Amino acid sequence: METIEKTLKDYLKDNRLRGTRLLQKLVQEDSTRGNESSAQAVIVEKCRQLGLHLDIWEIGETKLVSHEAFCSDRKDFSGNPNVVGVLKGTGGGKSLILNGHIDVVPIGNRKDWDQDPFSGHISCGKLFGRGATDMKGGTVSMLMALEAIIKTGVKLKGDVIYQSVIEEESGGAGTLAAVLRGYKADGAIIPEPTNMKFFPKQQGSMWFRITVKGRSAHGGTRYEGVSAIEKAMSLIGRLQALEKARNEKITDPLYKGIPIPIPINIGKIASGEWPSSVPDIAIIEGRMGVSPEESPDQAKQEMLECLKDWENADPWISDHKPSIEWFGGRWLPGSLPVDHPLMTTMAESFSEVKGTAPIIEASPWGTDGGILSSVGQTPVVVFGPGTTEAAHDTNEFINLADMFEAAEVIALAILKWCEAAD
Amino acid sequence: METIEKTLKDYLKDNRLRGTRLLQKLVQEDSTRGNESSAQAVIVEKCRQLGLHLDIWEIGETKLVSHEAFCSDRKDFSGNPNVVGVLKGTGGGKSLILNGHIDVVPIGNRKDWDQDPFSGHISCGKLFGRGATDMKGGTVSMLMALEAIIKTGVKLKGDVIYQSVIEEESGGAGTLAAVLRGYKADGAIIPEPTNMKFFPKQQGSMWFRITVKGRSAHGGTRYEGVSAIEKAMSLIGRLQALEKARNEKITDPLYKGIPIPIPINIGKIASGEWPSSVPDIAIIEGRMGVSPEESPDQAKQEMLECLKDWENADPWISDHKPSIEWFGGRWLPGSLPVDHPLMTTMAESFSEVKGTAPIIEASPWGTDGGILSSVGQTPVVVFGPGTTEAAHDTNEFINLADMFEAAEVIALAILKWCEAAD
Repeated sequence: METIEKTLKDYLKDNRLRGTRLLQKLVQEDSTRGNESSAQAVIVEKCRQLGLHLDIWEIGETKLVSHEAFCSDRKDFSGNPNVVGVLKGTGGGKSLILNGHIDVVPIGNRKDWDQDPFSGHISCGKLFGRGATDMKGGTVSMLMALEAIIKTGVKLKGDVIYQSVIEEESGGAGTLAAVLRGYKADGAIIPEPTNMKFFPKQQGSMWFRITVKGRSAHGGTRYEGVSAIEKAMSLIGRLQALEKARNEKITDPLYKGIPIPIPINIGKIASGEWPSSVPDIAIIEGRMGVSPEESPDQAKQEMLECLKDWENADPWISDHKPSIEWFGGRWLPGSLPVDHPLMTTMAESFSEVKGTAPIIEASPWGTDGGILSSVGQTPVVVFGPGTTEAAHDTNEFINLADMFEAAEVIALAILKWCEAAD
Repeated sequence: METIEKTLKDYLKDNRLRGTRLLQKLVQEDSTRGNESSAQAVIVEKCRQLGLHLDIWEIGETKLVSHEAFCSDRKDFSGNPNVVGVLKGTGGGKSLILNGHIDVVPIGNRKDWDQDPFSGHISCGKLFGRGATDMKGGTVSMLMALEAIIKTGVKLKGDVIYQSVIEEESGGAGTLAAVLRGYKADGAIIPEPTNMKFFPKQQGSMWFRITVKGRSAHGGTRYEGVSAIEKAMSLIGRLQALEKARNEKITDPLYKGIPIPIPINIGKIASGEWPSSVPDIAIIEGRMGVSPEESPDQAKQEMLECLKDWENADPWISDHKPSIEWFGGRWLPGSLPVDHPLMTTMAESFSEVKGTAPIIEASPWGTDGGILSSVGQTPVVVFGPGTTEAAHDTNEFINLADMFEAAEVIALAILKWCEAAD
């Protein structure tokens, strides 16, 4: 075993340039929502080269969209397939899912990027571009690990099921589709950007849209109207207080050091259409974190109570009740015991590469892990090379050294979990 | 003279239905910005019926757009002309401009309208629809007054110059174009919705757009980013304080009873593009009132100082300075002495119709009066039948009785100001 492990690590060290080139190629394909196909084509090409058994399909079937965990406002999935590549084992070993999403979030304000957001530019050991850290770098770590296993001639007992899914950033419809297609396993690794930490618990999250009403008037007699913007500001103040109260209740030591374990993020506001009119409607959209210890419905209930308190405190709001929609993305929370065998296997692999024990925390964001574990009954560890702070940010980047090390950790974990065949 | 006045009043009383029908027709033509042509066609038809000397032209010439008072972000004025109809006098009398804008503001939230916003629906003496009060009702008062003069065979010494202009709601390019085309006079009436009050002073106003920067991050680690929405809320708080400070300085008795004489209205906010990302940019647009006693530049200076104070108080803002643009609409303030002959003439006419003296105030909003007076050297009184509170609001309406009375006041004022020829 020791020799196989050395062989894998040596192969990975010798083939770093190939990994870098693959990441560059993936980042250079803009795979924002609805545009995932060209990046998936790069994945398919790579899987073919590795000789994986490919399964490429367009999601959206009735079984998926009518599933209770389905959560997407996307009407058309055609042309942007899910991709699964299976490395079949000889039998008798534990199976492992390697799951990564190919979709990336929008670029934000183009002017704040120093380079083209899809440049794949490399500087000082970092590769830049939207998706580099979240999570094309993690995807490359998995593919490099698989390549090392295959090219060095290791045969495994258990199956390795590599998945490149769409829709993670919008609620996990891609991973749900894979689960419903039958892809379940004895364990799963999701290399989301964890700064090389282990996240056995994943925070869930849900998107909401709250519509607040005012009354329009000429801006010159604005006192005759009721500003929806001012009412939205009042609401945001209440959501900030709700976030504070919810987080003060979190005592799980895995969240130690995380300033806001389950944030309520206000991601978007739109109100008004004319500078000199009082705006009569404001729409805010955001993301509510769901603790691994609560259900999405419990979190929703707290939000509804917050809105109710607001109504009771403001006669205008009481007469013009805000409406709330839970739309688009929803990620189920997930939780794996820290002493689960998959954690142990991963921790051993980590120590063999890094020489230290891993840092174990709860994830500050939702992942597809909730779907894999709660719908697919597949134990999940979230661990990846990406820089958490760089995710969704302008000038997103990944430290290539982390990507290479994560590839080694994953390769060793595959070997330990799925076991080498005689 | 007494007899002519009675004839005019009787004509107007007998022809109210014609005025109502004309208003209905005008309201039913959506004349939001860029769509003014079909409502102007109704005006042209009416002017032709009255035998006015018509001048119909598309504005946008170099002389206009290079004028220091020109203020518009509209690139294309073609197809939506200004209309002027002149009733030539026999000579020797004072000339009078009757100025009204045909453009209306957007409808706001359609759902908050009880009827189609362009229905022209009549109920309980009110006519409903966008523009009914601001200011198609005032336009009908002017046209009814002119019709009464013409149809009863009154010949005037002075010219009456009726103007139906575009772009008032966006900064007055239509009236400026009319002034630059040579239309000036010894006096002007603008029947904006004043609740039948006289506004010899008009508040000026300017539109601004402030761009506030944050730093994007994943919503799940929102503490790694800086929310542009939160920064925009902080800015709005400062603008509210600035508004308060500026209004505390207003001592003019004409503003007595007006809660906020020179408001700063936040009309629009847009920030963020993804519920689970921290927004990195927020754009607010608004309208800053300019007191008749200050120049637009002085008001701008106070805004810049407010932004400077904000920068000094917040290190992030100091490092990521907000940008401000003064865009789109700007209305010059205007001021006419309350004892000006035009005021006296108007007040006499008002008393003859209403039996009381008019209420005299300063306008809570900018009008095209600033351009007529400061660029066109034409003394202006703003007086009209529209309901101030209904302007720019949903379910906008006008009390038809006010429209008819305003028509009488304007007809008598024309007669007194321009004088009947022998």
